[in-house]
Amino acid sequence: MKVAEIGEDRLLARLLRNIPVNRLVISGAGDDCAVVAPPTERELLLLKTDCVVEGIHFASDADAAAVGWKAMARPLSDFAAVAGRPRFALVTLLIDRATELSWVTKLYRGLRRAASRFGVAIVGGETSNTTGPKTISVTITGAAERERWVSRSGGKPGDALFVTGRLGGAIGGRHLRFVPRIDEARWLAEHFEIHAMMDLSDGLGTDLPRLARASGVGFELNHEALPRNRGCTIEQALSDGEDYELLFAVAPDTSDVLLRRWRKRWPLKLTRIGQLTKNATRRNALPSGYVHFT
Amino acid sequence: MKVAEIGEDRLLARLLRNIPVNRLVISGAGDDCAVVAPPTERELLLLKTDCVVEGIHFASDADAAAVGWKAMARPLSDFAAVAGRPRFALVTLLIDRATELSWVTKLYRGLRRAASRFGVAIVGGETSNTTGPKTISVTITGAAERERWVSRSGGKPGDALFVTGRLGGAIGGRHLRFVPRIDEARWLAEHFEIHAMMDLSDGLGTDLPRLARASGVGFELNHEALPRNRGCTIEQALSDGEDYELLFAVAPDTSDVLLRRWRKRWPLKLTRIGQLTKNATRRNALPSGYVHFT
Repeated sequence: MKVAEIGEDRLLARLLRNIPVNRLVISGAGDDCAVVAPPTERELLLLKTDCVVEGIHFASDADAAAVGWKAMARPLSDFAAVAGRPRFALVTLLIDRATELSWVTKLYRGLRRAASRFGVAIVGGETSNTTGPKTISVTITGAAERERWVSRSGGKPGDALFVTGRLGGAIGGRHLRFVPRIDEARWLAEHFEIHAMMDLSDGLGTDLPRLARASGVGFELNHEALPRNRGCTIEQALSDGEDYELLFAVAPDTSDVLLRRWRKRWPLKLTRIGQLTKNATRRNALPSGYVHFT
Repeated sequence: MKVAEIGEDRLLARLLRNIPVNRLVISGAGDDCAVVAPPTERELLLLKTDCVVEGIHFASDADAAAVGWKAMARPLSDFAAVAGRPRFALVTLLIDRATELSWVTKLYRGLRRAASRFGVAIVGGETSNTTGPKTISVTITGAAERERWVSRSGGKPGDALFVTGRLGGAIGGRHLRFVPRIDEARWLAEHFEIHAMMDLSDGLGTDLPRLARASGVGFELNHEALPRNRGCTIEQALSDGEDYELLFAVAPDTSDVLLRRWRKRWPLKLTRIGQLTKNATRRNALPSGYVHFT
């Protein structure tokens, strides 16, 4: 059956069946606005929107459930970047009316799975017709403790730079099934003073200079130390992108104890890859001679 | 100049120049999440997302500033529907890289104008490339007093039904320049017990049955009383849609005093158009013999 045969009202009703809600949802999908419990007095409100577009962020023949997972996981990864707690999601779906209903149902299964994994309630959905590529836009709101959220801009000269997991080669499939590092980020912010943090979506070679620029510092990168996925070169670890790992900066004297406590707590790899420097003009993360073609 | 010639980072920087922010914004566009002040303890959090698609919600040759206004005004109208106060907006822009930069600049002018008009800060922006129709998706968050937000579902048998402004004919141009009835809705909720309210986006003939269904009641509509725009038939007032006027229900004994006080306070027309009834099976708002072709 095609989307056109069921109609938007019935489609939405079907998609929103079994969506994850929680006790914070006062009025979810179906009214003009979603009405939910606000953050507590001790928290700040966090907002993020992100979209995935067919042909750019996923191939036309990609598994729809994996596409749904990715569409939800990308903005969730931004919550990890600021050490925030995601709570509510709104989903906008732009598809051709000739799309198979089963594709949309699978997409929602993936969206729901990623939302549930992190306690997020889907509180609104919208679908619109398009003749263009399928697009899924997800907005997430949540909260972080006032004194604990982490920006990109607090890095200081001398700070040790760490990266979680391994980099490179995500296009082989990991870009569709990565796990946002929310739990790890919240643990980090709870136990250590994280000066600056971000998630790696465009590749360390692009993202590290952004963190340095936001912090008004430079950096030194130990290219040989980069944790790489199997079969990946240093160049790939720097440039492939879509790793969705955490990059963060802490005071250098925190470095050893952080590594030690991390290894007791998390199976995920954590690697010190360099440091922030005073010299704000040295911000090229790519090895000399490497040319970025995109 | 085309969007492709400037690049996404510079484009975003340019678009986000002069965007309206306010003292509630702690960290706006540029970091992984926007970080903003939460609602107060006495408020609830409101969330809404909506999008406009070229060829569906606006014509390809429509003025870009008007398209921007509409893209922001549509979700703002949903805040009016619940008597909420909008505060923060996130904007997702899907355009072909061959789009003229001037078009995008004008679009943002319209987005900014509508946001500023209602004290809304734009706290995040995203652009993505598409080969399909131009699409602008706007998510707005805000707040409403815990005891004062209005849903669609509180209508009671006997309630008087009111509609603001005039209906029909929006396609002639009003659909691109309507003013969300936020100020009026907040005044209503402050001074009267509004049982149920919604904004009219799909036309009274479609939206009134939705309100009745959500409230578990039926309705009687005085077709002759419908406030129509110049040159519009009753059928058009019921079916054209995109009026973005308020439809609301109050206890019948509130009706006269509400009308009197409204007329002292607002120049906008307010008309009693019917009532809610016990009989939940009578929910066709269209005059007998009328066939809805879409």
